[in-house]
Amino acid sequence: MAPVNPNQHISHKFDEEMENLRNQVLKMGGLVEQQIRRAIDALRKLDMVEAEAVSGNDHYVNGLEVTIDEECARILVRRQPAASDLRMVVAVIKTITDLERIGDEAQRIAKMAINISGNDGVFHNRYLGLMHLSEHVIKMVHDALDAFARLDPDAAFAVIRDDEKADIEYQSVMRQMLTYMMEDPRTITESLDIMQAARALERIGDHAMNIGEYVIYLVLGKDIRHISIEDAERDVLT
Amino acid sequence: MAPVNPNQHISHKFDEEMENLRNQVLKMGGLVEQQIRRAIDALRKLDMVEAEAVSGNDHYVNGLEVTIDEECARILVRRQPAASDLRMVVAVIKTITDLERIGDEAQRIAKMAINISGNDGVFHNRYLGLMHLSEHVIKMVHDALDAFARLDPDAAFAVIRDDEKADIEYQSVMRQMLTYMMEDPRTITESLDIMQAARALERIGDHAMNIGEYVIYLVLGKDIRHISIEDAERDVLT
Repeated sequence: MAPVNPNQHISHKFDEEMENLRNQVLKMGGLVEQQIRRAIDALRKLDMVEAEAVSGNDHYVNGLEVTIDEECARILVRRQPAASDLRMVVAVIKTITDLERIGDEAQRIAKMAINISGNDGVFHNRYLGLMHLSEHVIKMVHDALDAFARLDPDAAFAVIRDDEKADIEYQSVMRQMLTYMMEDPRTITESLDIMQAARALERIGDHAMNIGEYVIYLVLGKDIRHISIEDAERDVLT
Repeated sequence: MAPVNPNQHISHKFDEEMENLRNQVLKMGGLVEQQIRRAIDALRKLDMVEAEAVSGNDHYVNGLEVTIDEECARILVRRQPAASDLRMVVAVIKTITDLERIGDEAQRIAKMAINISGNDGVFHNRYLGLMHLSEHVIKMVHDALDAFARLDPDAAFAVIRDDEKADIEYQSVMRQMLTYMMEDPRTITESLDIMQAARALERIGDHAMNIGEYVIYLVLGKDIRHISIEDAERDVLT
């Protein structure tokens, strides 16, 4: 059963490959999002079993990164994509690097959950700031993946703007922890773990922002990294 | 003056472009290495002017990242490279992302220098552990760039092995700072800054290791991320 039009067949097959590539990124993104949620849950409930599960799942994230990377190389060699297809492949190569590092940060948070539950096994109300920060950052990752799925630059810009708020929340958690440590040096070890978790969340926010920037590059062909969000929006959206 | 052999001319021009690409990466790497050195110097001498200079130079690093990224996209479109040339372009795209993030970490260290000099303006001998860590990590970055320049997988493996030692030194600095904080809560703020600087150095070591992994991918065509160094060496070097 030879195809009627081989060119069309090849092109159709290529479309399928690109579609498949995007789906794999979204699958990896979904897994990474789940890893953050579970790590934060483990921290809130001081659930060591859950924390160990997060840690154990990290190799699935890593495996997806390697598979998708290989697929990108294969497409570059065999399809020699141009214009928007090429931008998609480059954006995918970069996006999965950030997703993999988000996975690493989730693993770090899980480790903090294990540390803290090894201390006194009580989740203190004074760590509520961290929970707010985590909700904010998980939303950023979700929105960045959504912008990638819908190829929506406006949604991507919203994620980038969100990062400023995440940074403010992060600074507030850090100041709060510093105050606790000074007031009661017995809380130092635990406060340091919370600070590390907060820093991991702040980095996750940065990675989500990076993904937003790749979406804008992908859709609009503009590299807006390293310029202010105001300049970028003026430059790109007018 | 038409060329005698257009094919050869094109190929020669392409070689030049690839050579130029590598040189630009090495230039960016040299700048980033200098940024870490100067940031650490600023911290040791509590030299605010030097720290501000590091912070101000970060946009050069960012500018190089954008330029090299564009050059990579241009080569992919116009040259449609295959095999080792393609691996070089992909490795460059990834390497400059890590270099740019090393630049960000250098900026973070410079910020800590500014914070600490704003406190009591004394660099305490108890921070010598951080200096050892910094020497180790700067050497890793230097060696990773050297492995990239010489396309030397053995040197790249050495960098990856070095990261374990860096992690041990990092843990030792962190434990030491924790002890100081517990003994004398008045040192908490400053110890936290030193901890942040140590964490920045530890991340720089991770980025140097990533670059080592790209060199191995580039030269040997093997993706050794996410497997143990022992397995990788057995797999690759036999």
